[in-house]
Amino acid sequence: MIRIAAEEAWAPKEILERYRKLLQEKPESWDPGFRSLWGFFLGPTERATALVRRIQDLGPQRLADMDATGIAKQLILLSSPGVQVFEATEAVALARDMNDQLIAHLSDRYAGLAAIAPHAPRDAVKELQRAVGLGLKGAVVNSHTQGAYLDDPKCWEIFEAAQALDVPIYIHPNTPPREMIAPFLPRGLDGAIYGFAVETGLHLLRIIVAGVFDRFPKLRIVVGHLGEGLPFWLFRLDFMHASMVRAQRYPGVKPLEMKVSDYFKRNIWVTTSGMQWAPAIQFCISVLGIERVMYAMDYPYQFVPDEVKVTDEMPMSDADRKKLYQDNIESVFRLR
Amino acid sequence: MIRIAAEEAWAPKEILERYRKLLQEKPESWDPGFRSLWGFFLGPTERATALVRRIQDLGPQRLADMDATGIAKQLILLSSPGVQVFEATEAVALARDMNDQLIAHLSDRYAGLAAIAPHAPRDAVKELQRAVGLGLKGAVVNSHTQGAYLDDPKCWEIFEAAQALDVPIYIHPNTPPREMIAPFLPRGLDGAIYGFAVETGLHLLRIIVAGVFDRFPKLRIVVGHLGEGLPFWLFRLDFMHASMVRAQRYPGVKPLEMKVSDYFKRNIWVTTSGMQWAPAIQFCISVLGIERVMYAMDYPYQFVPDEVKVTDEMPMSDADRKKLYQDNIESVFRLR
Repeated sequence: MIRIAAEEAWAPKEILERYRKLLQEKPESWDPGFRSLWGFFLGPTERATALVRRIQDLGPQRLADMDATGIAKQLILLSSPGVQVFEATEAVALARDMNDQLIAHLSDRYAGLAAIAPHAPRDAVKELQRAVGLGLKGAVVNSHTQGAYLDDPKCWEIFEAAQALDVPIYIHPNTPPREMIAPFLPRGLDGAIYGFAVETGLHLLRIIVAGVFDRFPKLRIVVGHLGEGLPFWLFRLDFMHASMVRAQRYPGVKPLEMKVSDYFKRNIWVTTSGMQWAPAIQFCISVLGIERVMYAMDYPYQFVPDEVKVTDEMPMSDADRKKLYQDNIESVFRLR
Repeated sequence: MIRIAAEEAWAPKEILERYRKLLQEKPESWDPGFRSLWGFFLGPTERATALVRRIQDLGPQRLADMDATGIAKQLILLSSPGVQVFEATEAVALARDMNDQLIAHLSDRYAGLAAIAPHAPRDAVKELQRAVGLGLKGAVVNSHTQGAYLDDPKCWEIFEAAQALDVPIYIHPNTPPREMIAPFLPRGLDGAIYGFAVETGLHLLRIIVAGVFDRFPKLRIVVGHLGEGLPFWLFRLDFMHASMVRAQRYPGVKPLEMKVSDYFKRNIWVTTSGMQWAPAIQFCISVLGIERVMYAMDYPYQFVPDEVKVTDEMPMSDADRKKLYQDNIESVFRLR
């Protein structure tokens, strides 16, 4: 068994500089979540400077950290919000540059997902096809793109391409968009503590309710943080979705071919990023099945060497532990 | 053992008529969540008319439904959003009227919580004192009041009064406020399927992070829907809150005396309303303790007689089942 970590962040100097420029040029009100997140991580605190140092590196520092924690391989994702905060033309060009840099680093220690610009769907498809041809294993979408979500039919060609290429899409958190974030900000609840989960959970539910998995039944979606809490809600999601459909309450809510929870058992996989807590991991295994849960560390955001012990020591068979750390990840991302 | 249901909804004709009037008089943009919720439930569907018929009744219909499902006693809450959508003066007067009506129905089958107007905190305190004096067992707050949350220090006198009176406050869901709801609406995710949980979870987290439980260490808060999903997040809440405090990232986030999860074990209780699903109930019992979890049906919104079987048949000792159905509720709400 080797340990593979399936949601590890990377952001080279070039994109960090563009984030800095964006923070200087754009008004406070433009994207309060981006300002909260990268205003902090490009700031002077010890937490921020340590993060920025590690997140740029795909060399000796990261490999040493991986060795120290027994991680054989990282699946690298361009860190949130990726290229999605830039206007479409810039985002398309930047995604290509980022992917070329990542492709140049692929090795037996690093696999990677492609950055794409969902606000230019045709270009996103082309870039996904190109990047997968050059060795990347799917796409990462850092939740909303300037307030837009992938359930918009304009974006469905991205799902179509992912299904045709047989690669998954990882829906990674972002801060909630401007139209949602205000009540989270006063108590610092917009980021990893809560807002990330809500934003990403909402995004995945929008995709399910829109019928994306009926249209693309072989599409694979991966979400982190143990499914952003949605496994806890499976019963209620089924009950309330059926109730809304029966009552024809919303024009945007049509009957689906399966229950909401069924898509979690056919099209959706979850990783343990940021959730190294045995009760929640075991809960997800029990309601989704061991094949649905994969290890992730969330390096370097949550680089806590001791946390590897949680999955190392969790009571489970060796075969199941190997699924969590290796088999499921190799299978879902077609790493072999 | 008797079965007590701890979050049961009631809304007399008078308040439903005021809701109808509000929907006619106020523009679409005023509170899209209220319009989504009560625009539906005051509409023509079978689901809506059945709900409106049952929710007004505190007489033979409700008692027959309770008898049919083996519920000995309901704890009655004025249904969401209660008086909180009305301007403060109207809300204060209406809360008093509603509470008087409810007090007149108290019996060995019905206990109740007081409606209050959090946007008039001084009046809310007076009404809570009056209502408790007349037999009600605490207060219900239907989450945000026109976009405002109880962590605002202006509202802390309500917490102070509840602690002094030795009664709990039930934070019940509402649709997300205007400043948050837009991305939930297109796919019907603003209500019970997801928005309720997010809005109420956010509210409780704002209260915790603000330090309310450090200031009022004996305050008791109850939330439904198995803690609105927050028990699933306890590890991450602790980790990320500590991280934010260390980095001094937000002016509104100060050190707390205990970990976030510790308040869930001292000041917070959860009910099973709308969550009759053994895996999630058992998860909450395992991470919070059997003393923290209480039965609720969510009548008449989720009146599904068969669901009582879930808690009847869950593998647990008779003593624990009695805690879930009776002892915890009698203790937290001081029903004896």
